[in-house]
Amino acid sequence: MIGAAGGIGSTVALGVAALRKGLAEPIGLVSALPQFEDVGLIAPGTLVLGGHEVRAMTILEGVQELHQRDRLFDERMIAKCAPIIRSWQKNVRPGTIYGSSRSLRVIGEIAAPKRERSPAAVIERLRADIASFARRHRLDRVVVINVASSEPMVRSAAAHARYSRLEKALAKPGSKALPASSLYALAAIEAGAAYVNFTPSAGVAIPAIRERADQRGVPYMGSDGKTGETLLKSVLAPMFAMRNLRILSWYGQNILGNRDGAVLSDPRTRASKVKSKDGVISSIVGYKPMTHVGIDYVPSLGDWKVAWDFVHFAGFLNTPMHMQFIWHGSDSILAAPLVIDLARLAAHEMRDGRGGPMRHLACFFKNPLDVTEQKHGKQWRSLVEHVTGGGERQ
Amino acid sequence: MIGAAGGIGSTVALGVAALRKGLAEPIGLVSALPQFEDVGLIAPGTLVLGGHEVRAMTILEGVQELHQRDRLFDERMIAKCAPIIRSWQKNVRPGTIYGSSRSLRVIGEIAAPKRERSPAAVIERLRADIASFARRHRLDRVVVINVASSEPMVRSAAAHARYSRLEKALAKPGSKALPASSLYALAAIEAGAAYVNFTPSAGVAIPAIRERADQRGVPYMGSDGKTGETLLKSVLAPMFAMRNLRILSWYGQNILGNRDGAVLSDPRTRASKVKSKDGVISSIVGYKPMTHVGIDYVPSLGDWKVAWDFVHFAGFLNTPMHMQFIWHGSDSILAAPLVIDLARLAAHEMRDGRGGPMRHLACFFKNPLDVTEQKHGKQWRSLVEHVTGGGERQ
Amino acid sequence: MIGAAGGIGSTVALGVAALRKGLAEPIGLVSALPQFEDVGLIAPGTLVLGGHEVRAMTILEGVQELHQRDRLFDERMIAKCAPIIRSWQKNVRPGTIYGSSRSLRVIGEIAAPKRERSPAAVIERLRADIASFARRHRLDRVVVINVASSEPMVRSAAAHARYSRLEKALAKPGSKALPASSLYALAAIEAGAAYVNFTPSAGVAIPAIRERADQRGVPYMGSDGKTGETLLKSVLAPMFAMRNLRILSWYGQNILGNRDGAVLSDPRTRASKVKSKDGVISSIVGYKPMTHVGIDYVPSLGDWKVAWDFVHFAGFLNTPMHMQFIWHGSDSILAAPLVIDLARLAAHEMRDGRGGPMRHLACFFKNPLDVTEQKHGKQWRSLVEHVTGGGERQ
Amino acid sequence: MIGAAGGIGSTVALGVAALRKGLAEPIGLVSALPQFEDVGLIAPGTLVLGGHEVRAMTILEGVQELHQRDRLFDERMIAKCAPIIRSWQKNVRPGTIYGSSRSLRVIGEIAAPKRERSPAAVIERLRADIASFARRHRLDRVVVINVASSEPMVRSAAAHARYSRLEKALAKPGSKALPASSLYALAAIEAGAAYVNFTPSAGVAIPAIRERADQRGVPYMGSDGKTGETLLKSVLAPMFAMRNLRILSWYGQNILGNRDGAVLSDPRTRASKVKSKDGVISSIVGYKPMTHVGIDYVPSLGDWKVAWDFVHFAGFLNTPMHMQFIWHGSDSILAAPLVIDLARLAAHEMRDGRGGPMRHLACFFKNPLDVTEQKHGKQWRSLVEHVTGGGERQ
Repeated sequence: MIGAAGGIGSTVALGVAALRKGLAEPIGLVSALPQFEDVGLIAPGTLVLGGHEVRAMTILEGVQELHQRDRLFDERMIAKCAPIIRSWQKNVRPGTIYGSSRSLRVIGEIAAPKRERSPAAVIERLRADIASFARRHRLDRVVVINVASSEPMVRSAAAHARYSRLEKALAKPGSKALPASSLYALAAIEAGAAYVNFTPSAGVAIPAIRERADQRGVPYMGSDGKTGETLLKSVLAPMFAMRNLRILSWYGQNILGNRDGAVLSDPRTRASKVKSKDGVISSIVGYKPMTHVGIDYVPSLGDWKVAWDFVHFAGFLNTPMHMQFIWHGSDSILAAPLVIDLARLAAHEMRDGRGGPMRHLACFFKNPLDVTEQKHGKQWRSLVEHVTGGGERQ
Repeated sequence: MIGAAGGIGSTVALGVAALRKGLAEPIGLVSALPQFEDVGLIAPGTLVLGGHEVRAMTILEGVQELHQRDRLFDERMIAKCAPIIRSWQKNVRPGTIYGSSRSLRVIGEIAAPKRERSPAAVIERLRADIASFARRHRLDRVVVINVASSEPMVRSAAAHARYSRLEKALAKPGSKALPASSLYALAAIEAGAAYVNFTPSAGVAIPAIRERADQRGVPYMGSDGKTGETLLKSVLAPMFAMRNLRILSWYGQNILGNRDGAVLSDPRTRASKVKSKDGVISSIVGYKPMTHVGIDYVPSLGDWKVAWDFVHFAGFLNTPMHMQFIWHGSDSILAAPLVIDLARLAAHEMRDGRGGPMRHLACFFKNPLDVTEQKHGKQWRSLVEHVTGGGERQ
Repeated sequence: MIGAAGGIGSTVALGVAALRKGLAEPIGLVSALPQFEDVGLIAPGTLVLGGHEVRAMTILEGVQELHQRDRLFDERMIAKCAPIIRSWQKNVRPGTIYGSSRSLRVIGEIAAPKRERSPAAVIERLRADIASFARRHRLDRVVVINVASSEPMVRSAAAHARYSRLEKALAKPGSKALPASSLYALAAIEAGAAYVNFTPSAGVAIPAIRERADQRGVPYMGSDGKTGETLLKSVLAPMFAMRNLRILSWYGQNILGNRDGAVLSDPRTRASKVKSKDGVISSIVGYKPMTHVGIDYVPSLGDWKVAWDFVHFAGFLNTPMHMQFIWHGSDSILAAPLVIDLARLAAHEMRDGRGGPMRHLACFFKNPLDVTEQKHGKQWRSLVEHVTGGGERQ
Repeated sequence: MIGAAGGIGSTVALGVAALRKGLAEPIGLVSALPQFEDVGLIAPGTLVLGGHEVRAMTILEGVQELHQRDRLFDERMIAKCAPIIRSWQKNVRPGTIYGSSRSLRVIGEIAAPKRERSPAAVIERLRADIASFARRHRLDRVVVINVASSEPMVRSAAAHARYSRLEKALAKPGSKALPASSLYALAAIEAGAAYVNFTPSAGVAIPAIRERADQRGVPYMGSDGKTGETLLKSVLAPMFAMRNLRILSWYGQNILGNRDGAVLSDPRTRASKVKSKDGVISSIVGYKPMTHVGIDYVPSLGDWKVAWDFVHFAGFLNTPMHMQFIWHGSDSILAAPLVIDLARLAAHEMRDGRGGPMRHLACFFKNPLDVTEQKHGKQWRSLVEHVTGGGERQ
């Protein structure tokens, strides 16, 4: 996991440990549904965790922070899982802040190298970490999942078009050709690991990087985990469509108080998130109602996230009506089981020797790579068909 | 329409007239979606309306009441459509209060015969009305749709088992073998009309009556139009299921102020409605969370209906979270286009010579006859496949 | 405290211990506001706790239940306060179920005497407990506060009119002249303790008992702590009044999952609660809009309580508009600081030698004894004036 | 009225006409409460209306727009009041766009002079209009109320300090010393009329202008009518204070679709509004919780305004809880009766020969001039005491 000691990373760690020790049921895991029972996915409790982290914080400290600040988890579960989590800490290596924006200022003490020579050197360091992790634990497959904070949007550059050009650019000392998320993506690809981007950052979604991933035959997917408000949109907007009700305006406002919220209080970073969240409605209904997606940082909420959506719509004889929803959940708790799902499902692809974009995982993302379908029901059927051998790739 | 001058009935009338005169777009009509464009459904503006009504009120008075009390419709539209609506008034005959409960007390001055000899006599009178309506307007097909107020739940009786027994019971003077909605259903069947039950009342859903309908080859369906809160449940509950989130409690409360609300303030009647609305959640998720469906009469709301649903659910590591929605719509405006849809779709079945339960119409009902599937997405696909000739009956 | 190990009782205990040890700030204590700083109220951390309890449960078990089920409190605070709480456990004696309704069935194992001879005998036993508590701890003053579950409404009886008649009735073996809450009230009065009723149960509010309290010169007050929805009503309804906006309907629905919720799922008990909550609106606005107060038991919510209120109102030119609020709080956390306030403020009255109804405490109650004023602002001013020596009793 | 044909202006006109003809009750008028019955305020139906307007739109067209777009008013009432409203149209003169920002672009066709020589010339033109209006109708008193769109915030300038300096600056051709709202304010002052600012624009709140008003002895007050969300804050924040509950964050979001909303979609204009709305909470509770006031333009809402406020607060033992409210009202309907109140109450001051800031009117404003008290209850008592001769100016 990129960002292994963050809110999502530490929740994944506690969760996998709790599943291994039989202290928790797999609630929230899509891959634990009966539909996927006989498919031979790796048991979630047998996953071995590791990753990169730029902050001077351990996974267990991440768990404790969520427990004390946000009233998550049970202290007895934490106590019982602590030994496993500590053993994974050895698998966590310093991440990179190469090319990172000033958003990092908000995230506290940094434990990553302050200066690194070139993007190529960073990629090589990260790749070696992944390879060493796989070797030490004799792992069949490694899946790298980005659960770090959101990055600002990346401007496209000439070097992004072809891998051959990009490779040269990356070798130049001081080059800013790629954001950190993309350096991790290339490190994963070079290590032969699958790459999944749970954030709105660029990651693998740059033509030259995809070219390289396809060359190397590794599976990849992203971006931006669909955990809450957008998930609701992707089931509610189809309802309006199926009833021929005309959406006039869909106004959504999100407030949250965790590190991701702090990072998102930088307008440049927020733009990348909002872009990922918006567009769902018009893609589903086929016309362009007024839509708004707001994200604001409310520190007192900690890891809890509240979304208020006001949907103004016209019914028969042009009559205005409205519905509202309020979604109140813990960001890390909603995301972590999906991260475990993605690890299991990506490993499944690798076992079957499939590389390239995992379009059947669209239902996990706000902005699914190469997939225009945003209706959750359709995305879901595509997942079930693919994994259970209905075999139809969408 | 049974209850032709009620909120739904009068909105249907204004709407069909407005569609005929090109004053309105078919917003809210499922059957106006592109999916059904080439199927040859009857144009909504060409429908001829009529029906039965127990109250001393005209359709146009119903329209005016909604306009003045509930701020629905545009007065210029009403003025332009009034001549058509008045012309339909001649097609409205006195309904029956035979066997009706005391709920009727709340609905004002009665224009129906106070005493009628026997259920059989009532059925014959109603049947003759339908036949005469069809004859006068040279109609190819008649669809009878029950949009009257809800009736109390009916206790099953021995005579309900076989049509031969029922027929005898109905001939007895003063017999209370059937509620009014079922007398209308039998009148429709005898007149060769399709019968659709938009209310939770019994209607056709009594074995002996279905036996007769099947004998006569008429199509029928019900019950209880799915217009708001239940519609939302049938798209939101699948989302919780697809994400393996465990619903702990689903608490729903509805408040409304129209005649249906007044009738539902009688606990016996409410029981029939609540029964129809409950059960959706557990049917979809496959286990039994605590569920509650409340309906309360708040007169000041008039035709407007507000539903508040609080969904308490557990996510990963058993973490409690919640979502809420508030649905705020006009009952008549939500229902009327679906009534037009049902008329068009039932007529389509008749044209194609199909009788029996129209299971493909499940997505229109809270409690679809012979259909256990409550997920709206699946119901919708069944509709599209049936009507567009994918041909698979569910 | 009557009901010492219940949700409120155990939260009070943890809170007083935490205040004593300097582990908590007095958030939520009205009596800790600057207005009351120089009045000489007893320091909350110096209170000595004890009480009666009918269940086989300790205070510390009550604390643990709230922590584990409802994610309340910090486990480190509990650990540090446990010794103090255990020391108070010795002050908790078996309560009485004499005259209690079947609601008790829902509350688990009973540790109170199954049979007691007469109400008089019960009162004497409880009184002796209070006296012994005061003696052992050399207390200057004792305040008895009822924080037990709600009782069903009591029918008035002839014996309720005069203490002389009541006394005779209470002596009769098996007499059901009074509910348990009133037996406790009489025990407190006979022990010279103040009595405060935080529940909607009868308690002291029976003429014969008040006669006795006045005779004995003890202060008393009730009933039903104003902790959430009603508190909001008592500040929002005045706003509508001050703006001359006409409330059409005020529809409120409460859901909660604690023991009180379970007890309230008995309709007879609920009636007493609903009566206490209703009437606030019309008392404030001076006319009678449609009002509804619902309470439903949703077990998964535990100690958390959610209230949804929909206020339909007319503005200028009779235009309908609406506001809604959703209140989401922990019942015990909201109530406990007010219980501490009431202990401090009642002790203050005793120190100053005042007995009788403490009308200046109206702002703490849904149904304040002898006070018709329901506007919270006015009640508050009455409190401040009385306690700070403005001296005007309302 | 400045902005006589806008949403508020036209609603005031319809309302006064309806009150004159006995077609409406004075719902929403504070000044119609029993408290002010015997004070001798001018009867609302006897007010004579006039004003300035920059748009090419009549008052009656404003009424029709609200009726057709926003479903406000009853068409029969409009028909009956139209003759009176038309008669007032003669009292509406071209306003000024001198010094107005580009926000005006959004408001349609302009009927005001495109070029005017100097601020002094504008003031003189407007003054003459007011004087002529008073003369033609033989009015005892004129109250000028600004109900136009919000202006961007004004930077303070040297000329704002003293009237003598300002007067010179205003005489310079092309001078931009003052925004339009302040030109109207000076015109009113010179005409001997009272001036009330119902918007967040500068108006009279510039030292040099106040100096002049005080010199001339005219009463004045502002700014920004307190109609909805802020009104609720000013009754709810005191509740949290009185209960010693600690507000952690108060997050408020407003959406609206009328002309004011369009104007506010200009960030510079919005800043002036947000500033007026924020600060209420910390002023009431005495500390600085995180607060947010958002305003967004959602065109489909028309004159309807929805506010969602999420209040995160800590209770006993630092337990986080929350309340939310949703306010759904028509901007014009909420504002219009307060405008009538202000006219009546300002005229009352004039009759009694009082000039200067009308601090007792604080309860009508988000940002009351010279008043720091934001608790609505206290502001209300100040109003009642002043008007009914309790005589205490706060």
